[in-house]
Amino acid sequence: MSKIARTLETPYYAVIFTSTRTLGDNGYENVGDKMFEMASKQKGFLGAESVRDEEGFGMTISYWDSLESIDIWRNNVSHMKAKEMGKKMWYSKYMIRICKVESDNYFETPL
Amino acid sequence: MSKIARTLETPYYAVIFTSTRTLGDNGYENVGDKMFEMASKQKGFLGAESVRDEEGFGMTISYWDSLESIDIWRNNVSHMKAKEMGKKMWYSKYMIRICKVESDNYFETPL
Repeated sequence: MSKIARTLETPYYAVIFTSTRTLGDNGYENVGDKMFEMASKQKGFLGAESVRDEEGFGMTISYWDSLESIDIWRNNVSHMKAKEMGKKMWYSKYMIRICKVESDNYFETPL
Repeated sequence: MSKIARTLETPYYAVIFTSTRTLGDNGYENVGDKMFEMASKQKGFLGAESVRDEEGFGMTISYWDSLESIDIWRNNVSHMKAKEMGKKMWYSKYMIRICKVESDNYFETPL
């Protein structure tokens, strides 16, 4: 996911997930990969971007075509179980923000 | 900035800046620190979050009270100069997304 998501024309939606990890993996990587795979197959998923630094602070943003698609993903049973594990084991704190992307602007160095 | 921004009640605005760095510093750290300091003093600034990985992929999100505050920062002369340097020297590609944060949810492990 270490690249810029090439989303569609605005407006679309973003879920910003900012978090601080606990120490140790505790199954996090494995479940995280599965969640990304599942989300990316869901209708309305437009892409995701994710970075975490060495101190355990990270940001993941997923992009969606509508609030309805975000709701379907929110209520996915596997995702709900993963969120419970997140609260119990993986994150000491997090913030989730649901946003409407109103405009965007892409830049790439000319070759 | 390596922590979760404690923003106000929704709605507020987010500027998501996702980028891939070029090689070398080229004055980036110094100017970046100055830009953060200036932005954080501007009226309407609510906070920022930033992470970059070892491969040069990074995400910075700044939060604002309104689109008007974002416009004032966009047209700040020092910021405009920094953006020109960014295109010439610091970033091989980037995406900027202007978003309205419609809802948020904070979690912290109980002590």
